[in-house]
Order: sequence, then structure tokens, then C-alpha cells
Amino acid sequence: MSSDLLHRVEEIAAARNVACRGILVGSAARNTWLSGDRDIDIFIAVPEDGNLGDALEIAREIAPVHEERYAEHAYVHARIDGFDVDLVPCYDVRDPSKIKSAVDRTPFHSRYVSERIRGLEDEVLLLKQFMKGVGVYGSDLRTGGFSGYLAELLVIRYGSFLRVLEGASSWRPGTRINLAPGANIMAPLVVIDPVDPKRNVAAALTLDRMFQFVAAARCFLRSPDISFFFPLEAHTMSPDEIRAEIERRGTEFILLEIDAPDMVDDVLYPQMRKAEASIKNLLEREGFQVLRSDVDLVRGEDVRARLLFELSIWELPSVRIHIGPPVWEADHVSRFVKGHTSPLSGPYIDNGRLVVEIPRRYRKAVDLLEGEVHKISLGKHLSSGRIRTLSKREILEGVDESLAEFLTAYLNKRVRVC
Amino acid sequence: MSSDLLHRVEEIAAARNVACRGILVGSAARNTWLSGDRDIDIFIAVPEDGNLGDALEIAREIAPVHEERYAEHAYVHARIDGFDVDLVPCYDVRDPSKIKSAVDRTPFHSRYVSERIRGLEDEVLLLKQFMKGVGVYGSDLRTGGFSGYLAELLVIRYGSFLRVLEGASSWRPGTRINLAPGANIMAPLVVIDPVDPKRNVAAALTLDRMFQFVAAARCFLRSPDISFFFPLEAHTMSPDEIRAEIERRGTEFILLEIDAPDMVDDVLYPQMRKAEASIKNLLEREGFQVLRSDVDLVRGEDVRARLLFELSIWELPSVRIHIGPPVWEADHVSRFVKGHTSPLSGPYIDNGRLVVEIPRRYRKAVDLLEGEVHKISLGKHLSSGRIRTLSKREILEGVDESLAEFLTAYLNKRVRVC
Repeated sequence: MSSDLLHRVEEIAAARNVACRGILVGSAARNTWLSGDRDIDIFIAVPEDGNLGDALEIAREIAPVHEERYAEHAYVHARIDGFDVDLVPCYDVRDPSKIKSAVDRTPFHSRYVSERIRGLEDEVLLLKQFMKGVGVYGSDLRTGGFSGYLAELLVIRYGSFLRVLEGASSWRPGTRINLAPGANIMAPLVVIDPVDPKRNVAAALTLDRMFQFVAAARCFLRSPDISFFFPLEAHTMSPDEIRAEIERRGTEFILLEIDAPDMVDDVLYPQMRKAEASIKNLLEREGFQVLRSDVDLVRGEDVRARLLFELSIWELPSVRIHIGPPVWEADHVSRFVKGHTSPLSGPYIDNGRLVVEIPRRYRKAVDLLEGEVHKISLGKHLSSGRIRTLSKREILEGVDESLAEFLTAYLNKRVRVC
Repeated sequence: MSSDLLHRVEEIAAARNVACRGILVGSAARNTWLSGDRDIDIFIAVPEDGNLGDALEIAREIAPVHEERYAEHAYVHARIDGFDVDLVPCYDVRDPSKIKSAVDRTPFHSRYVSERIRGLEDEVLLLKQFMKGVGVYGSDLRTGGFSGYLAELLVIRYGSFLRVLEGASSWRPGTRINLAPGANIMAPLVVIDPVDPKRNVAAALTLDRMFQFVAAARCFLRSPDISFFFPLEAHTMSPDEIRAEIERRGTEFILLEIDAPDMVDDVLYPQMRKAEASIKNLLEREGFQVLRSDVDLVRGEDVRARLLFELSIWELPSVRIHIGPPVWEADHVSRFVKGHTSPLSGPYIDNGRLVVEIPRRYRKAVDLLEGEVHKISLGKHLSSGRIRTLSKREILEGVDESLAEFLTAYLNKRVRVC
């Protein structure tokens, strides 16, 4: 299948008289596919001074029925004989540290791995399936986990699946695993890209995903089990089960639903996380307390970001402490006193600072969000969207399937650890 | 009156053939009495190798009807011709840096001031009355304010009442006002004792009292007014007024009443403040939030310490976050996991640490105090006392006169500042 496609690239390039070559990359290129994966990635490389448009034309001709997608540049996605095929234009650069587009590095990765992975293919498959099973596979910004290339490099470095787990058991934040000398990068895990020493292959890996893998690795080594690779499907809780669990916790829940444009996850998730942090900050600045929060993206007819906040403190008394300047700063003191002429108590001095006790603007977290959430920055693509603020009662009344899945995952949040 | 008493000391000492001399100290010795004060302090000094008992005998003979009080040593307090007279045995030391008892320094202070205060008596009187009026006069541990000796030194240093206020206007924490070179002491205000350069005369002054004085000084200089010296008596709120004000704040109040032994304020107040801090700590460690607190001592037939806590958070949900070890500490992780086999949620990883969500032991602050306050250290003389924990309802039902005064002062807490 792959070789057919590579052959077609050459044929069409010759017919059009353009200097293009096809390169098979990704797991299909080196027999490290996970079962169920049906992805074939073929790069169509134009010369460094060539035109990516030529490659795109070839892709379109190979797959007349296709979808055009965009990463840094346009590429063609098509379903061919049951496979998901990506036909990706790139530049055929000589030096991987001087790439012209982000995808130009991929053929180098592919070659580096192909030259070293022979005989270790099964080890890579085990590691990838383990990572998938314990929830850390994927270097997309939603997952923040391990890429396939990173898994391959780890197997090359440690020699086998089990030795990767053994190695990971003693990882600490900032661990460096270098197949080549490289730049002095600070990150939870640093794996210098052997084809580009300025680059950290594990750049997308978050601290928490890294240690989710470490914790699972330790458990597996202590008592190995098929469920690490193929965990039981989580049962989605019914609305009644959700209600009961929420009541048992005794907390308050607030759900923000924000209309979002139809952009890829890698664009929307970072913005949702930023919005989540801003809103948590707003709540805590006003004295409320967020126990935990999470985000979800619902793609239906429209796209909606869901931001869920569980509060341990959601209602506060009328009076609040307002701390003013140190008393030795006479000018600040005068201004402060003029600004608070009839406090509930004070001004008095606490620890050298002037303090007044004044009425609180928002006694309830839900009122604060309804009143103020529009005024804070929620990220480029979420700021303009309509926002609905749902209280616990409203959440529980409107539990559809996607919300049930989100709340189930939220309430059962758990990693493998022992 | 004073000279009569001094004469009596000499007479009795001669009759008993003991080498004692009487020394008039304090404000009576240098015409810096505040009106209303009727205190005469006479020290009865025995030779350095003498016996304080001899002096005490003389004091008893001078005032056959008296009360014996204890500071570091016993002394005689008596009411004579409408004056409150203290007759205090001390050692007649030569060098004030080599005193044998704390009171031995006083005659040196008295002499130092007497030799320099002539013509400035009215300035001292103004300053002391000002300090009294704005609530910062008294170096007892309850007040934490300015002693009479400190006020006198300030007048000597600055030259007049008004110049003291002007000087104080630019005080900052750690200000040094030295009439003599002295030790490198760290304190909110450092005034080296001219008769003992290792000693800070302002040692008892707290940061907040210091700046209460500074703030009032600035206000007075801006618009002087008799009320600084003689403030209006505060109206004690009625139980209904107290209830209304507490409702308006929307907070919870908890009052601890602890039986205390009949000790002087300077012994009990520091312990009450320590107990207050320990209890605040206990409450906040468990997730509750103290908005403000205060203590009071009620001396009636029995002595009771009152510890009042105003809470902005007094009830919490069932679930609470419990943060465990970093995941890279494998041994700690194992122990933590074994200790939390069925959490409400988790274990999961947050910021590299293992976290579980578990049931909270005390959902209400009042239950926490009833259950745990006996287990924390409340200071030597309060730990053994019976403790009553009163909720807001119980407080409001039992507002007697002393509690009304305490709550009035609490609710109207305010310093002069402009």
C-alpha cells in the first residue's frame, strides 16, 4: 500500500516534470504501528528552493477525493483502501537544523529511527500501547504526553520496553536522556533531538503526564498485568449516580459553557487552560476557593468549551478585610483613609499596615462569574464567544451524554500508582 | 505627702538600726503626674549586700493596713490619705548595669530624668495625656505601649511635646532614638536606656501601638483638638445593637471562655495571646478562616479568659484535598497509597505530587474547637482551665456587661488616622 503510493508520487512528479520525491515516514515506515492504527504518512518533498504548491498538486492528483487540512501549511488527508493517508508537502532540506517548515524535520526523524530500530519494533509497540493504556500517549497539547518518536528514542536509548520502565522508575524532574549532546534546556524531561540538538523531543510532555507514566511503570514492574495495555472501558455514570456523588462531596459546582470557533484541539486547548487559570484566579482573588477544575471541548453542530469549577468555598460573609499601606507611608495612608470613610470596622493597624473592614462586592461565586467573567481575558478565540454560567442545579438538570462523560472522568480522576 | 513618707523611712530605719534609705521615684518625684493619678512610688533601698526583708519590714510598719503584692519581689501597696502608695524594696546598687533585681534600675531612671526635666514638666504631662487619650500609654503586656519613662526620654530628646509628635511623624520600623550609644538591638522602636546601654526602654512597645501613636501624632499636627487628650467615652452597645451589627457583618463568631487562675495581667495576657494564635492556627490548618480575633480577661468572683474568633469561613464541604509526596519519591508514594485506599477521588498527580480527595474530619469550626482545643497547648495557666465553647447564638443570648464592653470594642475597633 505504502509503496504503491510512493510510486504514484514519482510517476506524477515525472509526468509534471517537477523534482519531487515521496518519503514514507511515521510508524508505517518502520513497522511500529499500533493495532487499530491505520495511518500512513507520506511526505512529498520539493527541493529547498522549490515550491510546496507543486507537492500539494501531486497530493491532490493522488487522492482526487480528499480533505485539505492545515498545520503550518496545507496538506491532503484522504481515506484510501481503508487507510487514513496524510500526504504532506515539505522541503527537502540538507541540514535538519536549517528546516524551512516544521514538517521538514520529520523525514530526518524517520531515517534516524529506521537506521536503529531494527529488531526492536515489538519493544516500541509494547511501549506505545502501554503509554496509551495508562493515558500518556500523545504529544498533542490536550494530552501533553509522549509522542511516538519519543517512545522510539526511549527504546533505542534503554534497549527494551522493560528497561524503559525500569529507567523511568527513577526519573526525577529535569531528567536528561541524551542520545546526542545538546542545548541546556530546562523541562520536566529533556530528550535532545539527535537530528537537531537545539530541540527537546519531550517539550510537549507535562510534569504530571511524565510522572503518571513513571507511577504506572513502577506499578507494572511490581505486578505486571494486561490491563496496563488495555484498561477496562470506564463506565459512564448515570445522571443519578452523578448527582449522588456530587452530593456526597458537599461542594458547589459551576460550569461555564463558552461558544468556540471550529479550530483544532491544539489551538483551543491551551486557550481553555488559560481561561481556566484566569477564572480560578478571579475566584480566589475574591476569597472563594476552587477545589479542582477541568476543561472539555464539545464538538457537535457547534463547538463549545466547557470549564468546570468545583468550589470548596462559594459563599462568603458581607464583611471582608481590606489591607492598606504601611502606616509609615503617610501619603498612601491619607489616600487610603479618604477612600474608605465609612468602613464596617477600622481603620485599625495590623502588623504595621492600615486595615479596614468593608462590604464585599460579591458574596456568591456564581454572581461573581456572571458579573465579572466578561471583563477578564479568556484567550483569543474564547473571548468573543457567548458564555453561559450554570450552577450545580442547572448542571444536574442538563446532563447530556458528553457532560456525563466529562463529569464521570472528573469525579473518578485517578492514575495508576502503587 | 511624699516627703513625709521619706521621712518615715529614715526614722524607722534608724530606730531599727538598718542601713536603708527612701527614694521617691516615678512621676511624683518630678512633677509629671497626670491629673487623676494619685500614685506615689517610694523605693526603700537596702545596701547591695543587705536584705530586702529589712526594707519590707519598714514598708509594713509605715502602712500597717496594706496589701502585699508581688512583682519580682514582694512590695507593699497601701492607700494613704487618698493616694495609692507603693513601697518597693530594692537594692542600692552602684552601677545600674549590675542590678540585682529589676526594680533596682528605677532610682537611676528617676535621677537621670530629674536632672534633665526641669522646665519640661508640662511637656511630659501633655505627651503622657496624649498617649493615654489615643490608647498607647502603658508598657504593661496587655497594652504594649509607651511607659512614663519612655515618654520622659522622648521629651528630653526632642525638646517638647509638639516636637515629639513631629519626630514621630517620620518614624519607621526600627527607628533608633539614642540618648547614649548602645547595643545593636532590633525592635520596632529602639530607645537605648541612658543608664543601661544594653537595654531598650521601648522593648514592650509593639509595632502596632508604635504606629497607632505615629498615626495619631500626624492627625494632631494637622488638626489639633482636645479630644486627642480626652476622647469621648465610648458608648457600650446594647445586646440588640450588638446583634444587629453582627448580623450586618454576616460572619460567624465563636467565643471560648477559659477558667484562669488569679494572676496579674502581665502573666495572663501573653498566654491568652499565645492561646489565641494557637487556636487561629488550628482553625486555619483545617481550612477555616479567621477574619479577626481578640482576647479579654474578666475578673469577677472567678477569673476567665475570653478568646473571641470571628470567622469568614466556618463551614466546609465533606471533601478535602490531601496533598501527598512528589511522585519521584517512590517509598513515600507507596506509604501514601497504602494509607489512602478508598479516597473520594484520586490518587492523581498535581504539580508532580500525589493528591487524594478524602472526607474532612470536621465540617464546622465549632465542632473542631469542641473536639480538638483540649489537645493543643494553650499556655501554662490556661491549659488546665475548664473551656466553654460558645457559638454565635449562645454568645448573643448571654451578653452581660463585660461581654458587651468587649464586643463593643471589638466591633468598633478603630485608631485615629487621617
